[in-house]
Amino acid sequence: MKKKRFEFPDHLEIMGITGLPEIKEGDDLTALFFDALEAEKVKLEDGDSVVFTSKIISKSEGRVVDLFGVKVSVEAERKAKETAKDAKIVQLILNEAKEIIRTTKEHIIVETKHGFVCANAGVDESNVEEGKAVLLPDDPQRSALRLKKEIEARSGKEISVLISDSFGRAFRNGVLGTCIGVSGIPAILDRRGEEDRFGKIARITKEAIADEICAAANLVMGEFKESMPIVIVRGLKLKRCESAIKEVLFNKEDDLFR
Amino acid sequence: MKKKRFEFPDHLEIMGITGLPEIKEGDDLTALFFDALEAEKVKLEDGDSVVFTSKIISKSEGRVVDLFGVKVSVEAERKAKETAKDAKIVQLILNEAKEIIRTTKEHIIVETKHGFVCANAGVDESNVEEGKAVLLPDDPQRSALRLKKEIEARSGKEISVLISDSFGRAFRNGVLGTCIGVSGIPAILDRRGEEDRFGKIARITKEAIADEICAAANLVMGEFKESMPIVIVRGLKLKRCESAIKEVLFNKEDDLFR
Repeated sequence: MKKKRFEFPDHLEIMGITGLPEIKEGDDLTALFFDALEAEKVKLEDGDSVVFTSKIISKSEGRVVDLFGVKVSVEAERKAKETAKDAKIVQLILNEAKEIIRTTKEHIIVETKHGFVCANAGVDESNVEEGKAVLLPDDPQRSALRLKKEIEARSGKEISVLISDSFGRAFRNGVLGTCIGVSGIPAILDRRGEEDRFGKIARITKEAIADEICAAANLVMGEFKESMPIVIVRGLKLKRCESAIKEVLFNKEDDLFR
Repeated sequence: MKKKRFEFPDHLEIMGITGLPEIKEGDDLTALFFDALEAEKVKLEDGDSVVFTSKIISKSEGRVVDLFGVKVSVEAERKAKETAKDAKIVQLILNEAKEIIRTTKEHIIVETKHGFVCANAGVDESNVEEGKAVLLPDDPQRSALRLKKEIEARSGKEISVLISDSFGRAFRNGVLGTCIGVSGIPAILDRRGEEDRFGKIARITKEAIADEICAAANLVMGEFKESMPIVIVRGLKLKRCESAIKEVLFNKEDDLFR
């Protein structure tokens, strides 16, 4: 039963990459990332985790909506009155939602079509021009895999890519950097079977490592101005593997808090 | 309305402090921390955040219970049958709980007397001798303040102290390093009123900075073996202030997921 799959590092570095331009639809994020690395004289190393804020992924993939063209349904009108939100924003939230979980005066908590439980389906009016809103990437797991392949091909290094968004949570105030796509490392570190300091066997510990990496990166990213939309986390000693963010998501039946 | 209280860092270092002995009741954690710093030739700097795993706080404060002496109530017997847990552990969970929120086959999710919503009231049998269990510190907020004062007095540096435990969460699998006591920096970064990249004013963004720091530290601490029970996070540019972890906790009435 004894397993040892993960040597904990004793030192990590978290580096914000500055100097990226405002991202537009069709931009090649990999090329822009390497331009910024070169300008900052940073070289990628084997084992680096590269964390992208979801917003630049969304912008490059054209997931920016002009509110002018949004048609509002009767349901969105009704929900807008409940929440004191703009009806067009509510319409976008409903479009992105698979299920509405709670509605408050400030937020509509939904399960998105990806399976993420979050406020307002991640629809966000910050850091985009007035009159527009940014949606979450269509398939952030696929985006993470693509970016990882592109960055590995260009650098010759074995790296991982994580895509991060700021999510609130139940029971506690405030948002945390949270992973919505991961490629190259485990999403969850399953430590069942490892021995503790006294030789006892761990039964249930699963560490949400991808979420911890995104939370760490968010300390540098800047929650609001997003002036450092890409962050490198260096020094993790994680097993290389293909994984998927869906490993982090509960099956609906197993979810205690719906 | 424009505010700027926080310059984001572009570089953070996270350093695990090794070489601490197994902690016993009455141990002077501050003295042991400085011994370990000296052995590793690490010097504290102004602005450092020192993150302690809750378990060594609990051990030093005598919050280790010998299960042999625990008397089991009828309620604990009943709950033990529901959960397939040891009745003595269930009794400790009930003792530590203010309110039971959910019971599953694996866990009793409670609000602790401190106000934390977590599994099993933080009662933990790992990394302690067979037949014993570790409780959360009695008042981790007070412990954080005390350690901060002691470390500042001895180092002459302005630092912050955070106490971290591994908590699960709703809607997502896995545990994350989560803050249960903080002194010297804000628990929540309230960024309402700041301008975004396009000059728009943020309305609702509150970043759970203390939780993000504990999540980052947990990447180094080692979830299970806890061989690095103290971690220094260096490079944060946070406003110095007295705060309290209760800023992170919802009022029960505002909590959507009870």
